[in-house]
Amino acid sequence: MISKPRGTRDFLPDEKEERVRTYGALRETAKLFGYREVETPTFELAELFIARSGPEVVDQMYTFEDRGGRLLALRPELTASVARMYSAEMRSIPKPLKLFYFGNCYRYERPQKGRYREFAQFGAEVIGNDSPAANADLIGMAFRNIAAVGLDEYVFRIGDLRVLRAILGDDATPEVMRLIDKKDPGLKAVLPDRADAILDSRIDEVRSIVGDDVMAEYDELTGILDAMDVNYEFDVGIARGLDYYNGIVFEADAPALGAEKQVCGGGSYDLGGVVGIEGLKATGFAMGIDRLILAREKDDAVGPIANVYIAALDDAAIPVALSVGQRLRTAGIPTDIGLGSARPNKAIKAALDRGCSSVILIGEDELAANTVTVKDLATKEQTTVPVDSIVDNLS
Amino acid sequence: MISKPRGTRDFLPDEKEERVRTYGALRETAKLFGYREVETPTFELAELFIARSGPEVVDQMYTFEDRGGRLLALRPELTASVARMYSAEMRSIPKPLKLFYFGNCYRYERPQKGRYREFAQFGAEVIGNDSPAANADLIGMAFRNIAAVGLDEYVFRIGDLRVLRAILGDDATPEVMRLIDKKDPGLKAVLPDRADAILDSRIDEVRSIVGDDVMAEYDELTGILDAMDVNYEFDVGIARGLDYYNGIVFEADAPALGAEKQVCGGGSYDLGGVVGIEGLKATGFAMGIDRLILAREKDDAVGPIANVYIAALDDAAIPVALSVGQRLRTAGIPTDIGLGSARPNKAIKAALDRGCSSVILIGEDELAANTVTVKDLATKEQTTVPVDSIVDNLS
Repeated sequence: MISKPRGTRDFLPDEKEERVRTYGALRETAKLFGYREVETPTFELAELFIARSGPEVVDQMYTFEDRGGRLLALRPELTASVARMYSAEMRSIPKPLKLFYFGNCYRYERPQKGRYREFAQFGAEVIGNDSPAANADLIGMAFRNIAAVGLDEYVFRIGDLRVLRAILGDDATPEVMRLIDKKDPGLKAVLPDRADAILDSRIDEVRSIVGDDVMAEYDELTGILDAMDVNYEFDVGIARGLDYYNGIVFEADAPALGAEKQVCGGGSYDLGGVVGIEGLKATGFAMGIDRLILAREKDDAVGPIANVYIAALDDAAIPVALSVGQRLRTAGIPTDIGLGSARPNKAIKAALDRGCSSVILIGEDELAANTVTVKDLATKEQTTVPVDSIVDNLS
Repeated sequence: MISKPRGTRDFLPDEKEERVRTYGALRETAKLFGYREVETPTFELAELFIARSGPEVVDQMYTFEDRGGRLLALRPELTASVARMYSAEMRSIPKPLKLFYFGNCYRYERPQKGRYREFAQFGAEVIGNDSPAANADLIGMAFRNIAAVGLDEYVFRIGDLRVLRAILGDDATPEVMRLIDKKDPGLKAVLPDRADAILDSRIDEVRSIVGDDVMAEYDELTGILDAMDVNYEFDVGIARGLDYYNGIVFEADAPALGAEKQVCGGGSYDLGGVVGIEGLKATGFAMGIDRLILAREKDDAVGPIANVYIAALDDAAIPVALSVGQRLRTAGIPTDIGLGSARPNKAIKAALDRGCSSVILIGEDELAANTVTVKDLATKEQTTVPVDSIVDNLS
C-alpha cells in the first residue's frame, strides 16, 4: 500500500471541518479590519526565497528544476511571494495597502508535534506605512484573530529592534543575540550591567538606559493599543531576524503548547529590500494555523452532516426519495439520502449517526398516496405529509 | 526583478474575492447534499499517480526527490490521493461515504487560456456504492454546483461505457476510440454501420443495437434524474479513460469556453484498483474551478472593502480613531481606518473608493467633546455622535 509522504497529513471530515471553520474565522476578522485577501503560487523561483532569507534557507526547501532548467521551490513562507506580487502588480494601488492571505508552506524538517513538512499559514501586511497607527491596526487585527479562532489564553509580546540595538550598542554579537533569543541567564556573564533589564524586560530600566526618544515609537504604539483594549507585554528581547526587521516586532505565545508555543510573529521591515525596489515600509505577521488549532480547547462542535435523512423503504421508492431530496436541497435544507432501500430502524440509526433532526420514510403506502412519513427525531412524533408540502413542513 | 514561474498566477483582491465566493458556493452546495470535506497533501509519492494514470503521467508531473531518495510529485489530480487516504484511514467508516474536496493541482503543460501549470480543482466521490441512486445523487450535486457558481449555460452529457463497449465489440481499437473521442466523421469509414448512431448519440438506434438489458442502468439513472429535474443529454461517445472508468460516465460543457469547454468530468470506477485493495465501487467527478470562473458571466459584484471608514483629521485623533474602530469591529461592522491624519475631502474620497456607506471624522472639536462626526455617504447627512453611542448609531 502506498503511504503518504513523511511529515504530511490527511484531514478527515471532522478535522477538515474544524480547519474550514478556523480559516473562516480568520478571514472574517481580517475583513472586519478592512484587509483584503490575495493568493500567490505554491512554488516560486528559488532565488526569491534566497533573496529574502539568505542561502541557508535552501537546506530546508523542496526544490526542483522545471524543463527550462530554472530552480523552483515550494514556498517555505508567504511574505516573499506577496512582496514579489506587490512589486510586479500592485505598485500603482494607493498606499497604505492592507492585505491578508492563507497558504500552505513547505519545509524539510524533522516532523514533530505541531511541526509538519506541509503546514498552513495565515499572514497579513500593511504596505506603505509602518507608523504606530498602522502597526496598531495590524496588531489589533492579529490580537482579535487569535481570539476569533477560539484561543482563550495567549500572551502578546511587543518589542522594538531600535530599542534592542540601542541597549546593546556594539555588543550585538551573534552569541549575545542567541542568549537573548533563548532568554538564557548566561547573558549575565557577558553583559552584567544590562542582562537583568533585558532578560526580565524591565521597561523602566530599559528606558533609563536608552532614553525616551528611542522609546518614542513603542510608547506611541502602546498608547494606541491601550485605547483599543489590546493586552500586551513589553519584551525588549524579541530578536527575530535582526537583519530583516527594523522596528516594532511582536510575537504571540499560547502557553498550552509548551516548548513550541509561538503562534504568531511579525514586525516592521523594508518590503522593497526583498524584491529590489526602492525602500518601502511595511509591517506584517504570520500565524501558524496548525498550532492555533492545537493550542485551543478541542473544538467538539462539529455540526450535523445533514438536517434531514431520507430513506426509501423499498427499491421502487428510490426515485421519489431523490426527488424529495432535490426539493429540500433547493430550499436550502441540508439533506442526505440512503442510496438503497432500508428498513425503518436502520434508516433512523443512519439519520441519528448523521446528526439529523428528522428522517423521511418512503415505502409502498407513501408511494401510493404520494406522501412521505416524517419522523421528528427529538420528539419521536411521526406525521404523514403530502410530497408537495414537504418543504413547508420542514422549513 | 524576480518574476513568478511560468503558468502560475497571482490573484489580486478582486479576483481572489471572486474565487473565495466560488469555493464557498461549491462547498455550501456539496454540504446541502450531505457530502463531507476532506483534504490531502499537496505532494505524494510519485508512484501513487503512476498507479492510477500509467507511466506517461510522469512527463507532466513536477517531481523531486526528498532526502530519503523517494520520488515525490506535486499532485496532478486529486482522486488518487483520496483513494490513498480512504484505504489508509477510512475503511472502517460505514459506506456509502460521500466526500468532497478542493485542491490545487500541477501539470507541466504549455500555458494557454484556461489552462495553467497550477490550477484549482473541486472534486467529489461516493465510495462504496455506484448504484443508479448513488450516481443520481452525485450527478445531481454536480449539476447544482455548476448553477451555484453562477454559470447559466451548460450541458450535461451522460453515457455508459458498458453501452459503448457493447456497441463496439471487438472494434474498440485505439484508433476507433480516438475518432469517437473527437467526434470525428472519419468514424464512418471505419464503422459504416454504427458511426451515425455513435456520433449523433441516437439513443433509439443505440438501444436497438445493444438491447434494453445493456441500457438498463442508464435508463434507471436517467429515470431518477428526470424525477430530480436534472437536465442532461445522452452521449454514448464519452470515452474518457476506458481503462479506468467502468460504467456510467458524464461530462459537462460550458459552450462559452469554445474549444476548452469541459468544466466537469467523472464516472464510476473501481477505487480499490487505484490503491491495491479488493474491488470497491465508487463514482466521482472533478471540476476545473478556473474554467468555471472563466465560463460564467463576469461577476462584478465585488463587495465593499468596508462599511465604515474612520479618518483622524489631526494626528492627536489617531488613537481615538483606532479605538472607535475597535468598537465597530467588535460589533461586527467592517471598518477601515486612515492610518494617518487627512483632510475631510480626502477622507471622503478614501471612503468612497472602499465602497463604504459612512465616514467617521474626528478632529479637534470632536476630540474635545468626546464625539465623532458621522457622514452618511448616500444621503450626505452629517451628524454629531457621542463616542459611546457610535455602535448603536451605525448598527
